[in-house]
Amino acid sequence: MIIDCHGHYTTAPEALAKWRDRQIAAIGSPSHRPSPSELRISDDELRESIESNQLAKMRERGSDLTIFSPRASFMAHHIGGLEESSAWAAICNELIYRVTTLFPGEFIGAAMLPQSPGVDTRTCLDELNRCIEEYGFVGVNLNPDPSGGHWTSPPLSDSYWFPIYERMVELDIPAMVHVSTSCNDAFHTTGAHYLNADTTAFMQCLTADLFKDFPTLRFVIPHGGGAVPYHWGRFRGLAQALNKPLLDEHLLNNIFFDTCVYHQPGIDLLTRVIPVKNVLFASEMIGAVRGIDPETGFSFDDTKRYIEAADLSATERELILEGNARRVYPKLDTALKARGL
Amino acid sequence: MIIDCHGHYTTAPEALAKWRDRQIAAIGSPSHRPSPSELRISDDELRESIESNQLAKMRERGSDLTIFSPRASFMAHHIGGLEESSAWAAICNELIYRVTTLFPGEFIGAAMLPQSPGVDTRTCLDELNRCIEEYGFVGVNLNPDPSGGHWTSPPLSDSYWFPIYERMVELDIPAMVHVSTSCNDAFHTTGAHYLNADTTAFMQCLTADLFKDFPTLRFVIPHGGGAVPYHWGRFRGLAQALNKPLLDEHLLNNIFFDTCVYHQPGIDLLTRVIPVKNVLFASEMIGAVRGIDPETGFSFDDTKRYIEAADLSATERELILEGNARRVYPKLDTALKARGL
Repeated sequence: MIIDCHGHYTTAPEALAKWRDRQIAAIGSPSHRPSPSELRISDDELRESIESNQLAKMRERGSDLTIFSPRASFMAHHIGGLEESSAWAAICNELIYRVTTLFPGEFIGAAMLPQSPGVDTRTCLDELNRCIEEYGFVGVNLNPDPSGGHWTSPPLSDSYWFPIYERMVELDIPAMVHVSTSCNDAFHTTGAHYLNADTTAFMQCLTADLFKDFPTLRFVIPHGGGAVPYHWGRFRGLAQALNKPLLDEHLLNNIFFDTCVYHQPGIDLLTRVIPVKNVLFASEMIGAVRGIDPETGFSFDDTKRYIEAADLSATERELILEGNARRVYPKLDTALKARGL
Repeated sequence: MIIDCHGHYTTAPEALAKWRDRQIAAIGSPSHRPSPSELRISDDELRESIESNQLAKMRERGSDLTIFSPRASFMAHHIGGLEESSAWAAICNELIYRVTTLFPGEFIGAAMLPQSPGVDTRTCLDELNRCIEEYGFVGVNLNPDPSGGHWTSPPLSDSYWFPIYERMVELDIPAMVHVSTSCNDAFHTTGAHYLNADTTAFMQCLTADLFKDFPTLRFVIPHGGGAVPYHWGRFRGLAQALNKPLLDEHLLNNIFFDTCVYHQPGIDLLTRVIPVKNVLFASEMIGAVRGIDPETGFSFDDTKRYIEAADLSATERELILEGNARRVYPKLDTALKARGL
């Protein structure tokens, strides 16, 4: 079984974006806020938006199950305040839940949180509980920069985040550390902000001792870990200079990297440098890079091809494609076992 | 001849930092400002600070010439305003000039600019002229984020930067795009901010058409290009989606990467992915990562070893170690030829 741990609902019916536009237009005038019930998307529309897109590509490329969450760039936690984020997260998560009930074999959910810059993270817990306990989601996306490129929140090692971590540990779910759109002109969203955030999050963990306080807390760093594996020597050297343990011990019981690296040399480096147990198959399809690579004739984001071509044993490949995801996302494993898988 | 295009004066005598502390303490009370003449560092002190540090390591590792600039993390363009930055840049550049006169065979200068957030970049030109025309420097460091991690400046493609580019083109010098210390708690300076800035700068160029306006403008992106080579497929795909030409044509006549990547797999990826003509040898020694790699027994930042072990022909290796630097820094080439080298 091939599990893609990183998919977003980038192809939701347009009614969703229109509802969001109305919500944004009503910021500051509560009486104009659209109610969640005004968003009407039929099961047929949902089915169509998935079948002709993500599901078609999963079948074509040969992956079986996607851990599916709301569109990352649409989270936009910097817009409005807690009220807006709460309503928006609830709507987006519910849509994901509906997709998982329409395609229970192919999609399982990961939650978006109703984060808002500067707001107590306890305000995220009700939505998180609902997603995990009622919707059967198996993970959560955590935005380390809800300001959208201004980086006004404390580092991930700060107690600001602990309420979320405590609940994650209780629920035994990992977080994918994933920012949303950049509203800072300096940062292109998918070409700079996403990768910078991955590197930043890793370094925030490296300089701290977060995993001493939360030994079972688990982060998946997407986009192949940003710049981290390419600069693994730099990070090993910085850890050493800071008198931290070796990275294997200091971070690699808790931090994992996905394979959203869109060319063979990048995947070769990732699998050469990072222990196999820390690498989880993912494509972020349909996402930032949707074209065909003229050098290969295949989609840039068809990352399974790179894993297949990498210098890995069959056992190692199986861990990356399935085993690691089942270990890092125990609720996924439980759900699959309940289905006899 | 082996040319290291990326060295900073990280080992300057303590009097320099003390003068800076006094300057910072006097912000807001001009009458307390220290005068540049109050900084007294003898030639013997300069010699000692270089001979026992950078020069000792150059001899030990076998590099011949370093393009040497003021300490990057000390530029701190966010501190004070134009007055402070101007006095500080002048002092730092003059020290570099003195080092190059004491060790004319081993060091040649690159300038620090008196940048200040939001200030017209024309204010940098006098110092730039002095460094190139009077001091014989061959390049300049350009900070794309003088705010120190808040990224309040326009992207590098914005006309805000054009006065500097126009002068660079006239002088025929490249800029190394290098940030300074981060004063944003989210970003560790050398573990996140530096690498993020490299990625950000590259993407700012990718989305724009800067090099159509400035076809001979040249940027060296340090630290192996941040996350860029590792995600080369992503960047190729993003350029394609934005209807830009292939990266070879769109950016690689103008953008170059140094080899400050502190482990063999990183250098192997860099030299596999990026055309050899775009890779310049550098170590940033003595810099961010000063320890011995326990996996190899050699210094993390002894990058020449990685170049020597990489799968390169003798001609390719010579380009990376010398030829490319002479081409990208024509004033360096002229200076060397004047010495019969």
